[in-house]
Amino acid sequence: MGKVKRERWSNEFSEWYNELLETAGIIDKRYPVKGMNVWLPYGLKIMRNIEAFIRAEMNRTGHEEVLFPALIPETEFQKEAEHIKGFEDEVYWVTHAGLDPLDVRLILRPTSETAMYSMFSLWIRSHADLPFKVYQIVNVYRYETKHTRPLIRVREISRFFEAHTAHVDFEDAERQIKEDLEIFDRLAKFLALPYIISKRPDWDKFPGAFYSLGAEIMMPDGRTLQIGTMHNYKQNFAKAYNIQYETETGDHEFVHQTTFGMSERLLAAVIAVHGDDSGMVLPPTIAPIQVVIVPIPKKDASVDVFAYAREIAEELRKAGFRVHVDERDIRPGRKYYDWELKGVPLRIEVGPRDVEGRKAVLARRDTFEKIPVERDAIVEEVKKTLDAIHENLYNRAKGFLESHIKRVDTIEEAKAVFEDRRGIVEIPWCGDEECGLKMEEELDAKMLGTPYPEEKAREGIEGKKCPVCGREAKFIARFARTY
Amino acid sequence: MGKVKRERWSNEFSEWYNELLETAGIIDKRYPVKGMNVWLPYGLKIMRNIEAFIRAEMNRTGHEEVLFPALIPETEFQKEAEHIKGFEDEVYWVTHAGLDPLDVRLILRPTSETAMYSMFSLWIRSHADLPFKVYQIVNVYRYETKHTRPLIRVREISRFFEAHTAHVDFEDAERQIKEDLEIFDRLAKFLALPYIISKRPDWDKFPGAFYSLGAEIMMPDGRTLQIGTMHNYKQNFAKAYNIQYETETGDHEFVHQTTFGMSERLLAAVIAVHGDDSGMVLPPTIAPIQVVIVPIPKKDASVDVFAYAREIAEELRKAGFRVHVDERDIRPGRKYYDWELKGVPLRIEVGPRDVEGRKAVLARRDTFEKIPVERDAIVEEVKKTLDAIHENLYNRAKGFLESHIKRVDTIEEAKAVFEDRRGIVEIPWCGDEECGLKMEEELDAKMLGTPYPEEKAREGIEGKKCPVCGREAKFIARFARTY
Repeated sequence: MGKVKRERWSNEFSEWYNELLETAGIIDKRYPVKGMNVWLPYGLKIMRNIEAFIRAEMNRTGHEEVLFPALIPETEFQKEAEHIKGFEDEVYWVTHAGLDPLDVRLILRPTSETAMYSMFSLWIRSHADLPFKVYQIVNVYRYETKHTRPLIRVREISRFFEAHTAHVDFEDAERQIKEDLEIFDRLAKFLALPYIISKRPDWDKFPGAFYSLGAEIMMPDGRTLQIGTMHNYKQNFAKAYNIQYETETGDHEFVHQTTFGMSERLLAAVIAVHGDDSGMVLPPTIAPIQVVIVPIPKKDASVDVFAYAREIAEELRKAGFRVHVDERDIRPGRKYYDWELKGVPLRIEVGPRDVEGRKAVLARRDTFEKIPVERDAIVEEVKKTLDAIHENLYNRAKGFLESHIKRVDTIEEAKAVFEDRRGIVEIPWCGDEECGLKMEEELDAKMLGTPYPEEKAREGIEGKKCPVCGREAKFIARFARTY
Repeated sequence: MGKVKRERWSNEFSEWYNELLETAGIIDKRYPVKGMNVWLPYGLKIMRNIEAFIRAEMNRTGHEEVLFPALIPETEFQKEAEHIKGFEDEVYWVTHAGLDPLDVRLILRPTSETAMYSMFSLWIRSHADLPFKVYQIVNVYRYETKHTRPLIRVREISRFFEAHTAHVDFEDAERQIKEDLEIFDRLAKFLALPYIISKRPDWDKFPGAFYSLGAEIMMPDGRTLQIGTMHNYKQNFAKAYNIQYETETGDHEFVHQTTFGMSERLLAAVIAVHGDDSGMVLPPTIAPIQVVIVPIPKKDASVDVFAYAREIAEELRKAGFRVHVDERDIRPGRKYYDWELKGVPLRIEVGPRDVEGRKAVLARRDTFEKIPVERDAIVEEVKKTLDAIHENLYNRAKGFLESHIKRVDTIEEAKAVFEDRRGIVEIPWCGDEECGLKMEEELDAKMLGTPYPEEKAREGIEGKKCPVCGREAKFIARFARTY
């Protein structure tokens, strides 16, 4: 890395993040359209590993993969009133083809409800077709007017994951939301990312949703980043797109629908949460290279450190690890620097004395700890150490998240938190929109919503008052400065 | 399948093809934008298997995967004069975002040269960066004015593969074209697709290319389908996009570039070439289900055919095969029909007598042959039979292709071929554009080009005359009715 440190409480985190994305080979933001970036091979490899896990989870839970066109006719887009209101300011319009204007203008999907649901109404006929569960991973487009930021706020989301389901009734849709939460939890553990789930306030629901849940992680600068959403649409879209099924008794009912969305923000979170002043620190689960072996030749040494390194690599590969031997003709220190930047979780150093003594040294990327090991124990030690790294990344991040959630009773206390170390502030709330918006304004922060599941939203509010109106509190409301 | 047969020489092939795509679950063409289709789960699974092979080949040959934005600024698109001329009639224009017109209009990529090459000029600095080899698999857009046809001629190509390379000189670019041809040959064998390679005539080169090669297969109706292209751009784009490198002696030179392109037409070819009146016939290499086991229960039988089927399935899965046991409560005949439609290469039928005698019956999808096997020999027999199916598909298609290439000396003979069984006609040609275009007109066919490698284009032309001008023939020219 350059001179920029991963400082909190300042613009330096942003600089650190932007510089790292480029120097570590994640994306190139010099593409000549603002807010649209080029994925570089190393970044794409990490993202593919994240996607492979998501696909496996989709498969495990009976979701089928589909692929819809990226262009949606204006006429379809306009069928659900709230949805169009929510998106009309940020869609890209295709108005011409070749030299001619189009009869029906097309939008570039900002999300795929309006592309998918007229087809759902053709596909879903009877209760036997339900639950109906599909997903796709595609590019979507949003004309962001706020400051863009690679992987976080972009005008082309290159890797947008969206699962769409249809159900016989509200209860079955609720079961789906539970399954989504379970999938998300497994994914977050896979990425070593602790998170919180909030039920969004009504004024911040997904356009067209009955309710929306959001998953947030804590960024190093104390702001939160939404990395997953689950929405229960009830029958809102089903009615707009006429998605009906025949019940067992021969009646016709509208389906209940849910969606579950994620994106390349998952990668942004991994980079931001686990990284340090030396660069990225990748969880072993998604690192394209889990172990890099650096041979350290010495002049006049009678043993072949390269052959020794290759032999260890071969053994580790057979055991299922992703291994690279760095045989470049440059100083070992330079190699350490490169692989630390790229976040390789474990380095193995082998010099002539290691060859002679049938040993090696493991160097952990997360703690920089060096661990001497016996040659014959390497596979076992690597496995153990990678597991320990993953666990440490998770625990470290969990400690950080937890120490950045503070419960307060008054606006003044909440303000003090945002002035000091930021993070998430939990405040008793009467549940009225007016009071919620007032707090957002006073705190210059966003209401993430109320803790979810619902029971959690009422824990410890007995006797508490809403600090705006003074009435009895019904919920805990979470506020944060957000990305 | 319905009543439509896979007849040649008529519109029935088209009907057969369209009906099959829908009934077998490949795509749904009822999406409300003409020429843009929805990929269904089964079709997408087959396509993913094709892509996995392509990715492995890219990896093997040192190409790195990248991902570029789908939107290209008008200003970048216009840098190479021939390229814009070739594409301006068929690009989609994004002119507005939200409620405002864009300052610089954007096109939806029809191919990615103009998106990629300004970045290449930033990335490539020295001879040490060369050869530079990248690829991506993305959605591209072409406003086709001809009749659209799913997977073949579409306005959204959902699965467009494009490899782009840069080299120190023309010779190294030529080596790349050879590597592309080798990759293509391995892929074609993987898909059991025999093909021919032709060097396109100058008037049909890719816009901006120095020369273009095309790979064609023979469709059941005697028309050809282009399923791969390789282009040597020489320095045309490098000069337009200023892609220079520093040589070992410190000079600056423009790179030489090539591209290699394929798409979902690969799947169209597989379906069309191998299919029959009962539906698809998938090569085992890409079949999502390679073996389907159909238990045939009989009333009052004392043995459990389902348990026996599951046991066989488990053993086959352990041996690495993709297996499905069809336990639905419907007649076996209905199951045969479904899986034949979906092209599953091998069916295993097990009835009570098979359980008792520890036997089973294999049914080949390609020949409908039934093969009784011993229980203990099943894994081995399945392997052998799947290999035999793949080989038979290839040989059958090869025979068909070869019997549809006819060499003639005169326009009259050529016309007779197109009136009779169609296919590819090879005619001696002087090499002049005027004579070539004249033949295209007279035959109402397209010149695919001259056989490639170049030596093949001159085989057997001694003493032959160009049938248009009567001058000495310099090449063999291939003509066909094309998709």
